[in-house]
Amino acid sequence: MKNITTKTQIKVAFYDLDPMNIVWHGNYVKYLEQARCEFFSKINYTYKDMYDDGIMYPIAKMDLKFIKSARFEDNLTVECILKELEPAIIIKYNIYTKNEKILSANSMQICVNAKTGETLYNAPEKLLKSIEEYNE
Amino acid sequence: MKNITTKTQIKVAFYDLDPMNIVWHGNYVKYLEQARCEFFSKINYTYKDMYDDGIMYPIAKMDLKFIKSARFEDNLTVECILKELEPAIIIKYNIYTKNEKILSANSMQICVNAKTGETLYNAPEKLLKSIEEYNE
Amino acid sequence: MKNITTKTQIKVAFYDLDPMNIVWHGNYVKYLEQARCEFFSKINYTYKDMYDDGIMYPIAKMDLKFIKSARFEDNLTVECILKELEPAIIIKYNIYTKNEKILSANSMQICVNAKTGETLYNAPEKLLKSIEEYNE
Amino acid sequence: MKNITTKTQIKVAFYDLDPMNIVWHGNYVKYLEQARCEFFSKINYTYKDMYDDGIMYPIAKMDLKFIKSARFEDNLTVECILKELEPAIIIKYNIYTKNEKILSANSMQICVNAKTGETLYNAPEKLLKSIEEYNE
Repeated sequence: MKNITTKTQIKVAFYDLDPMNIVWHGNYVKYLEQARCEFFSKINYTYKDMYDDGIMYPIAKMDLKFIKSARFEDNLTVECILKELEPAIIIKYNIYTKNEKILSANSMQICVNAKTGETLYNAPEKLLKSIEEYNE
Repeated sequence: MKNITTKTQIKVAFYDLDPMNIVWHGNYVKYLEQARCEFFSKINYTYKDMYDDGIMYPIAKMDLKFIKSARFEDNLTVECILKELEPAIIIKYNIYTKNEKILSANSMQICVNAKTGETLYNAPEKLLKSIEEYNE
Repeated sequence: MKNITTKTQIKVAFYDLDPMNIVWHGNYVKYLEQARCEFFSKINYTYKDMYDDGIMYPIAKMDLKFIKSARFEDNLTVECILKELEPAIIIKYNIYTKNEKILSANSMQICVNAKTGETLYNAPEKLLKSIEEYNE
Repeated sequence: MKNITTKTQIKVAFYDLDPMNIVWHGNYVKYLEQARCEFFSKINYTYKDMYDDGIMYPIAKMDLKFIKSARFEDNLTVECILKELEPAIIIKYNIYTKNEKILSANSMQICVNAKTGETLYNAPEKLLKSIEEYNE
């Protein structure tokens, strides 16, 4: 499987801060999703494609390691690294401020038939092709 | 139209706080929704009923007046007062801590045909009946 | 007072959507805040300046009119128009998709002494100067 | 170390739902925090105690396994099981609907000196005593 890494820029908003004046830990899950959506957008396999393929890719597992804190108006870089595609999509994430890594995480998404809920162990053809054709 | 007032208890969670150690102003919109859902639940007209009636009641207008701040683990009382039912539902809200009013707000919801998106100026029969039969 | 208008681009994230597949109405309050922070950033009066001036500008009032719905990955333009500066900051907002206005709103922020909580009716000198010197 | 398990009831709010009409996966992090706050409240070691002890317990790691989906107005039970106290607090979580387990998770919180940011490997005396004295 091709090694794909994408990068997404996110600026920390005021409403994501907690009383310690840092990003509330649960809000990083939003940043990971934004980066993951951009990952799929960049490889050209969109939610519309999932819909057309009759599948969904819900998150089955996620782990996060919080290393440092992000602050108001920090410009974060969220890196997505595709680790596995079948039987499930595994993406590794790193979040960086200008100077250092502040978070690492992993997500596992299972392919599911949107109608029956049945788990599928092969990725849809269009997704495989999108990855094959992707040029960084 | 019958005058109906309901009360909902909400305890302030840590994740709703901002760097000033008070509830971030936008989070009150969640508290109002929780209270409004409980209002509809108490008068016995639920989302399922809306679905069966083929209608939706999206928020068309909302105004909020922030008087005081709520803090971590404050026990808030959110009061919903039904002001108008047709042509649109208007609800007035007051949020109180133990000792004082901290917020007042109003919402206007328009009745919409779920399929066509067309605005309806009469409330569905079941809603009118639910209100008529409500005993505080 | 000088007429200032700023524009902020926001792309709708998946986590802001509700079961109707549109942005949940309360999430627009986040978009307004993002645009307001960018407004203050552009006129060069930041949170740090507020801190140095010993003041805060909490939201005292807000009203919103929801006209149309935003959808996943819509590119929104949030317009901030400064309407009044003293005794309180009033900002008018318009949110547009590519083709049309979908929301209008207003916020009123009161100037408060950060230590005493006392309301101040004059804007700090540095803010007045920042607005005077602003060039669009 | 004493084995402590607490239970917290949470009713799923509309604003936590996503376009699939289920709770958006990131919102479970809020439910875990609510349950964890209630855990500390029940063992009688509060945020005020942390403040008085000059420490904080930020989340250093978290993992989540999403088994089934929660839906609107589901009454969830969030179970917190204290697994380790030193050198870091490890809590295991299970979330149940009426009939089945829908999520399991773990969090690790590191004890930090609030002023210096230095990691502490011993829990504060008052916390140890609170756990010792806890009766379910």
